[in-house]
Amino acid sequence: MGINADLVKKLRESTGIGIMDCKAALIEADGDLEKAMNVLRKKGLASAKKRTGRKAMEGMIASYIHHGDKIGVLVEINCETDFVARTDEFKDLARDVAMHIAATSPSYISKEDVSCDVIEKEKEIYSEQSKGKPEHAITKIIDGKLEKFFSQFCLLQQTFIKDNKISVNEYLMSKVAKLGENIKIRRFTRYQLGG
Amino acid sequence: MGINADLVKKLRESTGIGIMDCKAALIEADGDLEKAMNVLRKKGLASAKKRTGRKAMEGMIASYIHHGDKIGVLVEINCETDFVARTDEFKDLARDVAMHIAATSPSYISKEDVSCDVIEKEKEIYSEQSKGKPEHAITKIIDGKLEKFFSQFCLLQQTFIKDNKISVNEYLMSKVAKLGENIKIRRFTRYQLGG
Repeated sequence: MGINADLVKKLRESTGIGIMDCKAALIEADGDLEKAMNVLRKKGLASAKKRTGRKAMEGMIASYIHHGDKIGVLVEINCETDFVARTDEFKDLARDVAMHIAATSPSYISKEDVSCDVIEKEKEIYSEQSKGKPEHAITKIIDGKLEKFFSQFCLLQQTFIKDNKISVNEYLMSKVAKLGENIKIRRFTRYQLGG
Repeated sequence: MGINADLVKKLRESTGIGIMDCKAALIEADGDLEKAMNVLRKKGLASAKKRTGRKAMEGMIASYIHHGDKIGVLVEINCETDFVARTDEFKDLARDVAMHIAATSPSYISKEDVSCDVIEKEKEIYSEQSKGKPEHAITKIIDGKLEKFFSQFCLLQQTFIKDNKISVNEYLMSKVAKLGENIKIRRFTRYQLGG
């Protein structure tokens, strides 16, 4: 059985083990990456802990704990160089975003992250809600309600709490222009006590 | 069709809508909670945002950002009263736990949280690794390796970074004794830049 070179590479990267051993393990596991990992562990070659990838990604992890310690946010924001990551401007941005998330509790980073299933279900509800309205108005109503949904639940589409004339995305873009690097909110977690 | 009173209660709690409407929605949805929620929304009674439960749970959300802003931890720690949650002792505990998680990156809170599937897979690997050893020794070897697995990946079973003579659980229990309240690490999130 031939083993895909990409798979060998992936197994190498996640274990740090040599090509020949990785290839043999993949053959034994019929090309299944997870099984091959276990084959290597059974042979005592790999450890349970995956090596963290050495992806070239800069930025910072920021947190915001709301007064009273009942709400907390953790956020990862990426940029292109550590130089930019260390600027006060970037750190302010990270703090602002964390504070914004604490206040608004978004469900998604961007409207692109909302699954088709969720969108379909929302549309179904909106079309039910707009029953009886003239046919030509319904599409518009549904689109409008969907945009409202995005601006309620998607971080980038939300109105920025520190300036209600712009969205979080527009705030981000203003920083991109200033700092001259691509900036991305990669992930966030928001805890509310007992939530 | 009869509707379970528990379901009606749940729907009430998550929507804040009256009993009769909740019951009618559940009947229309054949007792499916999520569908009933959508029925209420179609009728314009409920909003997309679930109400946060008003569970009586005290404690705090704490964070720890490692020097250099490349690792961050968010943790929720519960106790029984807000009085204890506001003590310096409790706040120190929360900070210590967050710092510990940043340093050791556990995968689970407790060994009780490790799924049977994972344990079975680990056991399989250990038994393969101990092939050729005398029969009576193998069970002991496997148990020993499993304990080692727990102490590597489970927060409560890990050795506490600030005192390597006790586990995190023992540290927690010492605080329970001091503060006189049950204390629980409820959840945590650990971000590593680019991880």
